[in-house]
Amino acid sequence: MPAETTTQHLSHVWEDLAWNQGGKIVYLVLDGVGGLSHPDRSGTELQVAKTPHMDALTKESSCGLLEIVGPGITPGSGPGHLALFGYDPLKYRIGRGILSALGIDFDLQVGDIATRVNFATVDDEGTVQDRRAGRISTELNQKLCQKINEHVALDFDGTFFFETVSEHRAVFVLRGQQQDGQSNSQSNSQSGQFLGGEVTDTDPQHTGVKPNPPKAQDESSQQTALLLQSFLRQVSEVLADESPANMVLLRGVERYEPLPSLKERFKLRGLCIADYPMYRGVSRLIGMDVMDAPGGMRKRFESLKTVYDQDYDFYFLHVKKTDSLGEDANFDHKVALIEEVDSMLPSILDLDPDVLVITADHSTPAVMGRHSWHSVPVLLKSKYVRIDPVESFDEYACLYGSLGERPGCQLMGLALAHAGRLRKFGA
Amino acid sequence: MPAETTTQHLSHVWEDLAWNQGGKIVYLVLDGVGGLSHPDRSGTELQVAKTPHMDALTKESSCGLLEIVGPGITPGSGPGHLALFGYDPLKYRIGRGILSALGIDFDLQVGDIATRVNFATVDDEGTVQDRRAGRISTELNQKLCQKINEHVALDFDGTFFFETVSEHRAVFVLRGQQQDGQSNSQSNSQSGQFLGGEVTDTDPQHTGVKPNPPKAQDESSQQTALLLQSFLRQVSEVLADESPANMVLLRGVERYEPLPSLKERFKLRGLCIADYPMYRGVSRLIGMDVMDAPGGMRKRFESLKTVYDQDYDFYFLHVKKTDSLGEDANFDHKVALIEEVDSMLPSILDLDPDVLVITADHSTPAVMGRHSWHSVPVLLKSKYVRIDPVESFDEYACLYGSLGERPGCQLMGLALAHAGRLRKFGA
Repeated sequence: MPAETTTQHLSHVWEDLAWNQGGKIVYLVLDGVGGLSHPDRSGTELQVAKTPHMDALTKESSCGLLEIVGPGITPGSGPGHLALFGYDPLKYRIGRGILSALGIDFDLQVGDIATRVNFATVDDEGTVQDRRAGRISTELNQKLCQKINEHVALDFDGTFFFETVSEHRAVFVLRGQQQDGQSNSQSNSQSGQFLGGEVTDTDPQHTGVKPNPPKAQDESSQQTALLLQSFLRQVSEVLADESPANMVLLRGVERYEPLPSLKERFKLRGLCIADYPMYRGVSRLIGMDVMDAPGGMRKRFESLKTVYDQDYDFYFLHVKKTDSLGEDANFDHKVALIEEVDSMLPSILDLDPDVLVITADHSTPAVMGRHSWHSVPVLLKSKYVRIDPVESFDEYACLYGSLGERPGCQLMGLALAHAGRLRKFGA
Repeated sequence: MPAETTTQHLSHVWEDLAWNQGGKIVYLVLDGVGGLSHPDRSGTELQVAKTPHMDALTKESSCGLLEIVGPGITPGSGPGHLALFGYDPLKYRIGRGILSALGIDFDLQVGDIATRVNFATVDDEGTVQDRRAGRISTELNQKLCQKINEHVALDFDGTFFFETVSEHRAVFVLRGQQQDGQSNSQSNSQSGQFLGGEVTDTDPQHTGVKPNPPKAQDESSQQTALLLQSFLRQVSEVLADESPANMVLLRGVERYEPLPSLKERFKLRGLCIADYPMYRGVSRLIGMDVMDAPGGMRKRFESLKTVYDQDYDFYFLHVKKTDSLGEDANFDHKVALIEEVDSMLPSILDLDPDVLVITADHSTPAVMGRHSWHSVPVLLKSKYVRIDPVESFDEYACLYGSLGERPGCQLMGLALAHAGRLRKFGA
């Protein structure tokens, strides 16, 4: 339903009204759970899945739909989650380089230039044969990273880091250094060491062509582009005899600027329970603590109760596989995964959180096999909800819920209100 | 659905299109009427109440829900009403001091500094024992005000007013004076007489602590803070032998700036029929006349017909008790009050206004006992409405009405349109 003013204005109001009182909020984010009807099934993934716990929950909840970024806009994972956390993704823009670095617990500093890297296979001409080098093992990745760190040297007053993420993915970070040894922070934007982050990708997104050269998009990024060019030349030599990973491709070159934290903005001390790097990364980016969560979805669900009495106001529990199976176009397995999640809900419900939200960061319909722009169902349970007639947690039933359809980044305002964490506006 | 543009932009369009033609608009505002389901009743206050007249009215109306300020935002009475009158409360901010002064028919002038006052009880150390002095009688309040006015003198080139509101509440107004006798208007902002309104409250909001000193928040408010400090010192001496009201607490220090009137903005000559000071105050603030309304809700309803032929385009009839009973957590009495209001509707319907709106400035669910953020039902009757299937005036039925759910300050645009008071946009 319509925003009074833009959600950016609303954000300031929520920030002004937030106080450090009230209840605990639990977000269960089923990544990419929103779907579309399958021609040979009886509906969407959520409609086909048997979800007795979620359906029962709707009877104590307000339901609705979230248009995560905006009409027709397909969110990446970063913007999708920022929206859910109350950070308008049109205002707070972060790329995959920053997220990947944060996701491997890399200690990013303000002004660092982070870039996502793929190991790739090129032929003798330098033409890309495989943009992921056959998805090499993480072990090989680590060996290659070591080789690069040992043999590549950049001629500048700073340092670089080249780190394994997993399989064919790595992260490259450039850190400028001041004469006095201070890092490349915003304060030295006038010094020669400032590195801008406006440099184009080298990943051509297709095979059969050569990588693009990294090009500076503004004056302050000229040195960054030169450093990346030098780095790529050297990497090409260092990896010349390797197979299949004999080159790297860069995507999402980006300068790290801090975001205001959940605590600063909404007086929330947050804890992330997630296993995938990117979601841990986006949580860190807004100042959440990240739990050293156990492997296995069921164990992560159950781990919530071990930390629920701790000094946190906001718990973010992330389920990745709903998205992965959607991307794999595996409708039936996505359905089964949703049913498995449903069976784990009682471990959360037993805690009786003051506010429980179940939603997604975007849709990933299995019939499309990729992220999509379709709005996602949302369910908000609290003792102060205006319960609606919705009786099933899916894309169609939620259309008639009392939350209506609204922008994704309004969710946090509603969650705060239902937790008693917003004061009255005006007298 | 999310608004394409902000309502602040829309406001300018309505202002441009408004003309002094068309029909009369009647707003019946049932303060805080929106509610939540009671666990031992069969729904919300509006659902449980038997309201044959309102229900019949829905069959000739467009219905919907208003999100008064924004998602999750609990409106105070001032912002709630401003929104209904087409004033975006995020743009037009007013505090309790100004509203209280306007509500006692105090003739505020531009630049006056108005503050809400509570008589309070302090011990020998000055520690607050009772923030409302046992809710002293209005008569005692008047006696104390007289004493303060007689014995307190402020050493500045201006004057002050200290006036009873009711019980423990009063209003304090500082008015700077120019050498030539002109009041402290915006035009003399460079002179020594300008008094800023950015001064902190002295009310500590808790007992067992001393009042806070009034502190200036900007340069132009330094003199204001000094005057308030001098005032409080003298009041403390003047009331030293009084009991229980031996001190005053200040809240919502504020400089009076005029708002553009309903007439300037929407070509509406408005009349307020309300008994509570704040609602009379907010009406005056936007240039409405305020009727010297008779006591008793039924008489106020019936008084509408005595003024309906007068030269007004907009009538605002306010019912306070729906809110008071909600704040008292008295579900059953709130239901009974709604039924009583319903029984009075024919006196309005007999006038057959061109546009009749029934709505609220916010929800005050009896199960919460306070204002809330939940959207409020709205009903708009006119011969040009798109009648919808809604057959009951309540929070759930209206969710499926033809007005949808929309920001509170869009209501005025719709009312103007249905009254034929907006021209066509463009050729």
